Amino acid sequence: MRGNGEAMPKHEAMPKHKAAVRKVLDRVKADKRSALTAPEGKLICEAYGISVPKEGLATSAAAAAKLARKIGFPVVLKIVSPDILHKTEAGGVIVGVKTPQEAQKAYRTIVANAKKYNRKAKIEGVQVQQMVGGGQEVIVGAVTDPSFGKLVAFGMGGILVEVLKDVTFRLAPVTRDEALGMLDGIKAAEILKGVRGGEAINRAALAGLIENVAKLIADFPEIVEMDLNPIFASKKGAVAADVRIILDWKPPLQRYRPSQDEILRAMNRIMRPKSVAVIGASAEDGKIGNSVMKNLINGGYQGQIVPIHPSAGEIMGRKAYKSVKDVPGEIDVAVFCIPAKFVAGALIEVGEKKIPGAVLIPSGFAETGNVAGQKEIQEIGRKYNVRLMGPNIYGYYYTPMNLCATFCTPYDYKGAAALSSQSGGIGMAIIGFSRSAKMGVSAIVGLGNKCDLDEDDLLTFFEQDDNTQVIAMHLEDLKDGRSFAEVAKRVSKKKPVVVLKAGRTAAGAKAAGSHTGALAGNDKIYDDILRQSGVIRAPGLRDMLDYARGLQKLPTPKGENVVIITGAGGSGVLLSDACVDYGLNLMKMPADLDQAFRKFIPPFGAAGNPVDITGGQPPSTYANTIRLGLEEPRIHAIILGYWHTIITPPMVFAKVVVEVVEELRAKGIDKPIVASLAGDVEVEQAAEHLYDHGIPSYAYSTEIPVAVLGAKYRWARGAGLVK
Amino acid sequence: MRGNGEAMPKHEAMPKHKAAVRKVLDRVKADKRSALTAPEGKLICEAYGISVPKEGLATSAAAAAKLARKIGFPVVLKIVSPDILHKTEAGGVIVGVKTPQEAQKAYRTIVANAKKYNRKAKIEGVQVQQMVGGGQEVIVGAVTDPSFGKLVAFGMGGILVEVLKDVTFRLAPVTRDEALGMLDGIKAAEILKGVRGGEAINRAALAGLIENVAKLIADFPEIVEMDLNPIFASKKGAVAADVRIILDWKPPLQRYRPSQDEILRAMNRIMRPKSVAVIGASAEDGKIGNSVMKNLINGGYQGQIVPIHPSAGEIMGRKAYKSVKDVPGEIDVAVFCIPAKFVAGALIEVGEKKIPGAVLIPSGFAETGNVAGQKEIQEIGRKYNVRLMGPNIYGYYYTPMNLCATFCTPYDYKGAAALSSQSGGIGMAIIGFSRSAKMGVSAIVGLGNKCDLDEDDLLTFFEQDDNTQVIAMHLEDLKDGRSFAEVAKRVSKKKPVVVLKAGRTAAGAKAAGSHTGALAGNDKIYDDILRQSGVIRAPGLRDMLDYARGLQKLPTPKGENVVIITGAGGSGVLLSDACVDYGLNLMKMPADLDQAFRKFIPPFGAAGNPVDITGGQPPSTYANTIRLGLEEPRIHAIILGYWHTIITPPMVFAKVVVEVVEELRAKGIDKPIVASLAGDVEVEQAAEHLYDHGIPSYAYSTEIPVAVLGAKYRWARGAGLVK
Repeated sequence: MRGNGEAMPKHEAMPKHKAAVRKVLDRVKADKRSALTAPEGKLICEAYGISVPKEGLATSAAAAAKLARKIGFPVVLKIVSPDILHKTEAGGVIVGVKTPQEAQKAYRTIVANAKKYNRKAKIEGVQVQQMVGGGQEVIVGAVTDPSFGKLVAFGMGGILVEVLKDVTFRLAPVTRDEALGMLDGIKAAEILKGVRGGEAINRAALAGLIENVAKLIADFPEIVEMDLNPIFASKKGAVAADVRIILDWKPPLQRYRPSQDEILRAMNRIMRPKSVAVIGASAEDGKIGNSVMKNLINGGYQGQIVPIHPSAGEIMGRKAYKSVKDVPGEIDVAVFCIPAKFVAGALIEVGEKKIPGAVLIPSGFAETGNVAGQKEIQEIGRKYNVRLMGPNIYGYYYTPMNLCATFCTPYDYKGAAALSSQSGGIGMAIIGFSRSAKMGVSAIVGLGNKCDLDEDDLLTFFEQDDNTQVIAMHLEDLKDGRSFAEVAKRVSKKKPVVVLKAGRTAAGAKAAGSHTGALAGNDKIYDDILRQSGVIRAPGLRDMLDYARGLQKLPTPKGENVVIITGAGGSGVLLSDACVDYGLNLMKMPADLDQAFRKFIPPFGAAGNPVDITGGQPPSTYANTIRLGLEEPRIHAIILGYWHTIITPPMVFAKVVVEVVEELRAKGIDKPIVASLAGDVEVEQAAEHLYDHGIPSYAYSTEIPVAVLGAKYRWARGAGLVK
Repeated sequence: MRGNGEAMPKHEAMPKHKAAVRKVLDRVKADKRSALTAPEGKLICEAYGISVPKEGLATSAAAAAKLARKIGFPVVLKIVSPDILHKTEAGGVIVGVKTPQEAQKAYRTIVANAKKYNRKAKIEGVQVQQMVGGGQEVIVGAVTDPSFGKLVAFGMGGILVEVLKDVTFRLAPVTRDEALGMLDGIKAAEILKGVRGGEAINRAALAGLIENVAKLIADFPEIVEMDLNPIFASKKGAVAADVRIILDWKPPLQRYRPSQDEILRAMNRIMRPKSVAVIGASAEDGKIGNSVMKNLINGGYQGQIVPIHPSAGEIMGRKAYKSVKDVPGEIDVAVFCIPAKFVAGALIEVGEKKIPGAVLIPSGFAETGNVAGQKEIQEIGRKYNVRLMGPNIYGYYYTPMNLCATFCTPYDYKGAAALSSQSGGIGMAIIGFSRSAKMGVSAIVGLGNKCDLDEDDLLTFFEQDDNTQVIAMHLEDLKDGRSFAEVAKRVSKKKPVVVLKAGRTAAGAKAAGSHTGALAGNDKIYDDILRQSGVIRAPGLRDMLDYARGLQKLPTPKGENVVIITGAGGSGVLLSDACVDYGLNLMKMPADLDQAFRKFIPPFGAAGNPVDITGGQPPSTYANTIRLGLEEPRIHAIILGYWHTIITPPMVFAKVVVEVVEELRAKGIDKPIVASLAGDVEVEQAAEHLYDHGIPSYAYSTEIPVAVLGAKYRWARGAGLVK
């Protein structure tokens, strides 16, 4: 049996621990059972180094005493008899046995009681078991999620935690560091460190146990749910007092997973096409095929545009063809603007023409109940190796190519944010907000029913797309959450990935056979796995849009020290509140720096942090304190609070800030700055001016600018760019 | 001794329970102690019907057995000897005594052990005590807050709750219903109801205990902190196993509290003056005294405006006077536009002229360290009975009188929201947002240093001001939180009161002597008491502004059934998420109503709730479904999700919605409706049109409209207007 916290050997050829589990599972399978008995569960745990109470069978009082001494006191003695089901009722259990003498006596008592209870009972002996308890009760478990696959769970034990649902999930398997991170991932984490005189638990032992459970469930697909509950975690180690394992013999669905290279090859042709075919192109106003043609042409796309139409010789000045197969030369992407019933036929032609991508605007598939129709086109796509976007989408934009393959209107404000949405309505909100707020956009993509192309395909493309610096995605589900998590984990190291997960509160709960299953509210899993993948989760639509707009403007902070410089004491207080809400660290102002700030502000102003320059100050006070903040290497990010006064009107403030920031950028100093503007309506224009110059700024809000900076920090921490 | 859950008698002349406590406290005071001994604590608890373990002293084995039988088994026996401090060490404690025989034996063992331990020890006997335990461990305590005074606290016991800070506070004393509400006011509330086979506790007993603790601390100002920890709450009752009481003999500060009538008399003259004096009026551009004069005149105030100036004969066409004392006739309010150092002198003249209100714009008082100067004017105000607004403020607006007594600019969009701010910066943000969003405003008031006029004075005025329908206040502290809570509780029954409490995260924690004190993070107290007072707490500045703008538009809902009608399925999902976040109840759609909605939507659209009318629908589908929602009495509020399409463009949607809503308003049906608009930039104008017609609507956000409706519901529930 392996000890606490000892990891599994990693490179054994035919590892013994796997063979031991396989042997148990084979027997269970032969029995056509889906649940393991307690002894079977213990065997499996022991094979994977998961500590369970030590135990043995004694057939004499002397043997019981010897065994108990070997196990270590205190022990529990229990009758073992196939004829006695209710051991306690039969007087067949004695707990808290503390000496060899007591063990001998307990053995005799138990056997006598058992005989008295049922004189015909066949008595196999008495089980002597290590008595566990003390320390902290915790629970480790496993579930199988339809999207994420095998997940390991950790939480505190006891009913209180059950009520508070204080549990955390990770994709299995996990590294030791991830397992240790789980111990800090619950609200009650402090308890494990020992509070109020309680002893700290052995973290290595508990993390090792989690690691081993995760390895076990990853190694054996048929183990679908598991509970170790309770586990007694103490200074000495972590012992699982009870084990529950549920099996499912149906093999898990295999998902279509092209290699990253294959994805990239197709995505690069789809997103940066040299030639676009419009299937169902039309010269008739109001038709989707007309809107798409217009948008491609008016948007300024410089590649070849090929209308496909059953009869027209040319459409909008471009030569038209009956079929893509008639078009000479390569086509990179075909945009479908035809009714659902014609899609399958045209898609076969697209496949035969070896076009790598089909953009399926038409609705009328799974979303209207036409599941068979969707399956049909999915199979055609797979057969011909055509990647499918949609169906049921508005199309897509890729601004570096001036490409607008949608029935909406061309988007005109280029920049570094790539956005996607699963829903058309949300896509329209993205387009409207982006235009209204002049958000710099590289791409907007509709994913719709996601019969093929998914968020992870987009991530793979945007990862290597130099025109994209931040990726923001609205999604309602992930067809393959595990694949998304893997890709997102890699991509988010390079570029911020923001996710708005809709349907947070839809139960999504399938009937769960285990305790862990019951604790696994669908959203909690998304929340944990997205965080584990380095993704910034946006709480709402507007937040996602604000993050996408702001994150591309802010440079990456080099450290955690945030300073607030404010003309309004009242804003300073609210900005400080927001810093706590969004996980920002208000720098404790060193005495020398405090002195340096004080030189610029009135004697009754407060240095410290916030630096309160007071309300009636001229532009120079803002300039001086901001310059100091930027030049000082101990300060890593600045939050400005502006108060509208006659002495420093809004646009004067905005211009002076931009001046100082640009002066220092020219010297190679570029720190994240955001601003909150309090004042009459003129502050709106000032905020816009600041935003245009790389300083995310908001009128009448002390929360949004801090939320944007907070998102940047969350990303930078996850990517290991700031400690 | 009073039993569990038995309330105190209420109208005793010289109540015995008070006398008993007074006797104990007098003895402690005579001893110059500030903490009570355990027996003293028990005496006090018993006097107030707070159950503590039963106990008695036995001086023979037979007496111990008799006493134990009377108390009820199990019991604990403990040696009582002034010479034995470490009872356990001396073998002087035996727990779990279950029969009279065991009690006799335990008595003899303890006495023998004690004699063996110290043969000279004077043995007074053996204490026989009820053994408590089992059920749920909870804590009840009390603290004294500098602003709110006596507070009673309730939480779960054990370290887990300590880590999670799961505790709730109420102003003491509390009613039985409030005490019962506290049991539901913690996150782990479910546990008390019995989960996973656990027994429900006796709620009446525990609530009774809380009620009695609250009464005790309210009756005795010198009891400043109290811990009953742990209390064992079970099916049988609630017994406090340990009592800790801390006293402070300094009498609490008495605050100036004019009667509501006095407040109203002054406030009505200040807010609706017939005559305003401007002390420091000036003809010179850029001076505050000039801005105030201009704003009064240009704002269209029709009352008398009297400039006060040391030498000028007239200012801006109005006859000027050297002193308010020279002005013939009554003056209602004097606006100060002079430097701090001249304020005291001028204020005496204001007092002598019997002007009821002084608006102190000047800064240079406590906020710059001039505490003495502030105290001086405070005393003058009190002496002459002049109510003071400020100092250190921008002034105030009261739009029904076209009154703009500020150095800002006149506000032009009249309506029903009264706002106040403690900070000038936040005041400017209020003015800017209100103007930009065309928020209907009745008043904007700066409170600044609050040396006298406070939020509760404003509440008292706005309560009876027919021009005001919603009150929104930014505040950093409450000088007299108890008074605010009392007034807010009354006012919020009539009009929504929104509070943005800044400085949430400032520790504000004074060194606490008790466990309860340590749990009382300042913000948690604000949060609980504001909720208890029926106040809607805004999480941030923009939320406060959105609530103030939206709440005045929405009629009060008549029930909890909310229905979402959406053209975009994606918006429907996000709107549903938001409903959960903001505590709205998505109606479970009855079959007949489902059928009725289905008549208007395509077969693949989803009725149920959200009602998904699907994206490509004409205006009539919106009109028909919204009309049905409004006409149907089982539906109480509607959330609209709009998706921009060519078939129903934004303004067409907005106009059709307004048409239907107005058609039904004309028939006497007026339900709260909010809307979320997803689309290109034209949706902004559509949202504005909807807002102008009483339908709070937001482009590119699914959260804000639901938050506004959620705030209306929170208010309506607190005011008892919706069940």
